[in-house]
Amino acid sequence: MPLTMPMTMNDVWDLYREELKRVESQIHADLKSDVQLIDTISSYLFNSGGKRFRPLLLILASRLAGYEGDGHIELASVIELIHTATLLHDDVLDEASLRRGNKTARILWGNQASILVGDYLYTKAQCNIVSFRNHEINEIVAETTRRMTAGELAQLSVNCDLQITEDEYLEIIGNKTAALIAASCRIGAILADCPEDRKDNIESFGWNLGIAFQLTDDTLDYVADGKKLGKSIGKDLQEGKITLPLLSLLQRCSEDEANKIEKIVQLYDFTEENLELIVKLMQRYGVIDYSLARARGYVEKAKKSLLSFKDSMPLQALFAVADYVVDREL
Amino acid sequence: MPLTMPMTMNDVWDLYREELKRVESQIHADLKSDVQLIDTISSYLFNSGGKRFRPLLLILASRLAGYEGDGHIELASVIELIHTATLLHDDVLDEASLRRGNKTARILWGNQASILVGDYLYTKAQCNIVSFRNHEINEIVAETTRRMTAGELAQLSVNCDLQITEDEYLEIIGNKTAALIAASCRIGAILADCPEDRKDNIESFGWNLGIAFQLTDDTLDYVADGKKLGKSIGKDLQEGKITLPLLSLLQRCSEDEANKIEKIVQLYDFTEENLELIVKLMQRYGVIDYSLARARGYVEKAKKSLLSFKDSMPLQALFAVADYVVDREL
Repeated sequence: MPLTMPMTMNDVWDLYREELKRVESQIHADLKSDVQLIDTISSYLFNSGGKRFRPLLLILASRLAGYEGDGHIELASVIELIHTATLLHDDVLDEASLRRGNKTARILWGNQASILVGDYLYTKAQCNIVSFRNHEINEIVAETTRRMTAGELAQLSVNCDLQITEDEYLEIIGNKTAALIAASCRIGAILADCPEDRKDNIESFGWNLGIAFQLTDDTLDYVADGKKLGKSIGKDLQEGKITLPLLSLLQRCSEDEANKIEKIVQLYDFTEENLELIVKLMQRYGVIDYSLARARGYVEKAKKSLLSFKDSMPLQALFAVADYVVDREL
Repeated sequence: MPLTMPMTMNDVWDLYREELKRVESQIHADLKSDVQLIDTISSYLFNSGGKRFRPLLLILASRLAGYEGDGHIELASVIELIHTATLLHDDVLDEASLRRGNKTARILWGNQASILVGDYLYTKAQCNIVSFRNHEINEIVAETTRRMTAGELAQLSVNCDLQITEDEYLEIIGNKTAALIAASCRIGAILADCPEDRKDNIESFGWNLGIAFQLTDDTLDYVADGKKLGKSIGKDLQEGKITLPLLSLLQRCSEDEANKIEKIVQLYDFTEENLELIVKLMQRYGVIDYSLARARGYVEKAKKSLLSFKDSMPLQALFAVADYVVDREL
């Protein structure tokens, strides 16, 4: 493929299909257990889709940094186990009934099993990580999972709090989302044993991409999707999560409108009518476009982190992934 | 103190009070965080009592094996963080309202915060462990936490299942309880860098002690305690946990009595009257004495694991702890 043609996300899936298939086999091998309930629930989870976004980034980052070995497959699997563990606990916390269009594990097997299988996936991931006997990888994974949990707790602490600042919001999404994406990228670089500044650049790519990813998610939560009938709008707000679109709206709307929004949030009065009102105000004040532009800003920042790398297939692929993060569902 | 006088548990607390105080300070230092909710909940948890049984064992094992450094304080703290993390999740799973006579965190701050602070304590413990950069310790901690979660899941799988065998029961309590106690002991030995067979002996002490500990807990659950008014009897059974006293009772009682018990369990019909009936049958068939004798058997096995160690203060202390485990609340 000529490197002058920008790569698309479909090209990326095609080019890395074989490696992602190996990750998939690795995940299944990692989850073999003599406890039936672990097999049943984990098979369900890992056969319910999921783009393997973090494994893909780990693979691409390792290749960009010049890694030629095989360890990236096992570590990519481990990152997906950790990610899935957090989803299981998130679904219990949010009392979610659906994920990716399928019933959540907590609906099918209950909260107890979901909490414990989450714990199991996480501890199994730890077993596989430490078996690599690489202190740098041990430390980044431990610190990342600590940050993720701290981020979730910080988010819980500001539930329904309209006074939170944009910086506080950005810190929360940094910890709860960007940290694991940044770690996936840095682990790829660590595997390649490249110089520290290159590791930092690759990690910075992941961090900014992670922020863009969560900003986009938080924005799309307020956008109706013609393809998905019945998609509920404002799900985050219903769970008390105050995200960038709402914070931006409060900065732009009139005092009367702000008071109305405050009242809705304080009373948990999330009727369809009230949510529609908020979405209409967001459209009127250009908040959706603004939030997506902010996300695109982080994508550009991510790409700039990789300026010092010479052109290559993994570099083009990382650029394609970066663009895809913001434009995926529009 | 002359070594010919058997040490009592009170002697042990006195002799190791200073080191346990250092563990306590370490725990508080480890839990400093910029998320208020983490500080609030963890202060509550770590100020609500708890005997620091696992930290004590880690300290004693390290001293028995000849360790003279300071690393055991930090690792003892880490083990207590992991133990507390499992208690937080256990209380959510069991919908418990009281622990050690205090309201559980889930009653005061909700299930969400309890799940997340459990995750936080666990991930923070991981950070501190890997910072030791000792592969052997990393691996035993990761494998132990994996086993603990697998044990909890296995227990959930056989909820209310009267067909479970004694071996299956012993495997479950081995994983969910003995594994962490055994690991606490082995980590002490690893710190001392003693020969493999000594590490194995010390770990075996912990494993057998852990089984004795859980057997005793499971038995005392069916024993009324005059000191604690209002102590509910048969709490485990009410949560669907089938333990040794009930399994032994089913082996000894008449077919009619067994049918009655099966019916009670199948219908979740745990009225006070039915629980009293079961306790009375246990007394009649000597099941409580039998179960405690089994626990004492494991204590003796634990002590025998340490036969090759020459007499010393930590050895006498470990023996005192071992006896205390079975006789603590009778």
